[in-house]
Amino acid sequence: MKKGEFGLIDFIKSHTTVPEGMMGIGDDCAIIKGDVNDTIFSTDMLLEGVHFLRTKASPEDVGWKSAAVNLSDIAAMGGEPTATFLSIALPSDAQGEWAERFVEGYAEISRLYGVPLLGGDTTSSLRDIAINVGVMGSCERGKALLRSGAKVGDTIFVTGTLGDSGAGLKALLADLDNSREEVSYVVSRHLRPTPRIEEGLALSRTGLVGAMMDISDGIASDLGHILRASGVGAEVELQSLPISPALEHICQCEGWDKYTLATAAGEDYELLLTAPEEVAEMVDFPLHPIGKIVEGKAEIRWLKEGKEIEFNTKGFTHF
Amino acid sequence: MKKGEFGLIDFIKSHTTVPEGMMGIGDDCAIIKGDVNDTIFSTDMLLEGVHFLRTKASPEDVGWKSAAVNLSDIAAMGGEPTATFLSIALPSDAQGEWAERFVEGYAEISRLYGVPLLGGDTTSSLRDIAINVGVMGSCERGKALLRSGAKVGDTIFVTGTLGDSGAGLKALLADLDNSREEVSYVVSRHLRPTPRIEEGLALSRTGLVGAMMDISDGIASDLGHILRASGVGAEVELQSLPISPALEHICQCEGWDKYTLATAAGEDYELLLTAPEEVAEMVDFPLHPIGKIVEGKAEIRWLKEGKEIEFNTKGFTHF
Repeated sequence: MKKGEFGLIDFIKSHTTVPEGMMGIGDDCAIIKGDVNDTIFSTDMLLEGVHFLRTKASPEDVGWKSAAVNLSDIAAMGGEPTATFLSIALPSDAQGEWAERFVEGYAEISRLYGVPLLGGDTTSSLRDIAINVGVMGSCERGKALLRSGAKVGDTIFVTGTLGDSGAGLKALLADLDNSREEVSYVVSRHLRPTPRIEEGLALSRTGLVGAMMDISDGIASDLGHILRASGVGAEVELQSLPISPALEHICQCEGWDKYTLATAAGEDYELLLTAPEEVAEMVDFPLHPIGKIVEGKAEIRWLKEGKEIEFNTKGFTHF
Repeated sequence: MKKGEFGLIDFIKSHTTVPEGMMGIGDDCAIIKGDVNDTIFSTDMLLEGVHFLRTKASPEDVGWKSAAVNLSDIAAMGGEPTATFLSIALPSDAQGEWAERFVEGYAEISRLYGVPLLGGDTTSSLRDIAINVGVMGSCERGKALLRSGAKVGDTIFVTGTLGDSGAGLKALLADLDNSREEVSYVVSRHLRPTPRIEEGLALSRTGLVGAMMDISDGIASDLGHILRASGVGAEVELQSLPISPALEHICQCEGWDKYTLATAAGEDYELLLTAPEEVAEMVDFPLHPIGKIVEGKAEIRWLKEGKEIEFNTKGFTHF
């Protein structure tokens, strides 16, 4: 449980006692200590009209994404997914073809990552589609990568380009022509995010990662969680943010600000991590350095070409 | 995943591969084999307007029941609950007091059964409240009590009175006077069901239980699941069904049929099990024998005073 909408999370925390050997609210997954491996668990709810629109996403895409965003939470801990659980409430007009195509998209990503769907619940809904996915995973005992491990001097890395998903959402809402290559690319990054499972496992094996999480709300918001959990500050260089050619192109054509998209639009589901610089040479996929962990208040100092700038970002808000 | 609404479950099953060492769709919980203990998991979704009405249930009651019906699935396997996970989507008019009172009810039963709430998700909803609870538990390796273990000659037992919850729902919908003792009793059985965790664990320890599940849809439907999973038939004696004095009374006053309520209204969340007769002497709580497992088709023969009768029941349908 990580999103603090309407302050309810704090109220829940004040009503919860977490036993010895467990970790609850406040990271990408909960942790239940085991003898050999720890069990980790995360869950996310997706609602029609809030998280997706039936007019903008195919049922297969919604199925894919429902599983993907949960698998991404397992990746964020450096864990291995074990199984998923799907609850779905369907209004009568979605109980036939929509539901089956949804399951096909869900099954596609489940097969790709070798994660079985082991259970769930199906029910009728009066109006909107409601989906909840839970995912169970495992980590070597005590080795889950938390948000609280960032150390002064660590480099801040991300595993892929930022802002594509946000641009994809804007493109969908603006009905941009999907036959344009750059549009089609960012839309697919929005509808079919890639959970960085292998990358998370490889990063965990280096033993060097300080803090890690996945980027669901944008680094402006998400890095803030790491800084507060770790009690450190950060400097982020806007020029270092990895921006895809497609995002460069679409931002030029549409007059969108690539830095706002890359920092605040969210839903990229890349991994955001802190580690000594040399970690980048220990893995066989690109790690993009975007800044440094520094002493000081749990705030991001934004730099452009090395000079501090005023840069106001607002976290991603659902449409 | 156990409810087969609109045939989606079968479609999901046909798109799922369950690895060696796991058990998926088809029982009260999924099972993931471990070295010492097996991990079990179940999840249930509750929607406003489908599973509860804000005008008929207090937020505390909805919170209690959301956790209770999931804990009951752990009880149904003879397992011990480890942790729960709560996803909740709230429209703006439920984000303040309603949500906090919901959490208080949820926390109350969580404390009572010593089960921590370890995570979840909170989000906004456009209209209705949507709740999903997941519960993790554990069973001694290979000892989870399944629906498939009923043996010819077993006695069929239930752990408590049947039909109270269904009468409680009817009383709520008919706005019966809640100061009447019998009304207040059945309403509280509907709004605050008791998960039979200790009973399930004690029954598991006897080593004698063949099949077990919890009663969510009524025995007419639920016993059918055991019969189909086990490939056996059953005889159930209506006169043996445990009926509370409150249910007797309210049925007399209102002209309701106690047998229909006891067999088909559901949501009693008592345990339904099959075992040799002597199991009743091995536990320190009442076990009510209601019939026998017999050879033959996976159907229930209904008896009244030992004579077979025609008895049409329909499973519980949501309002």
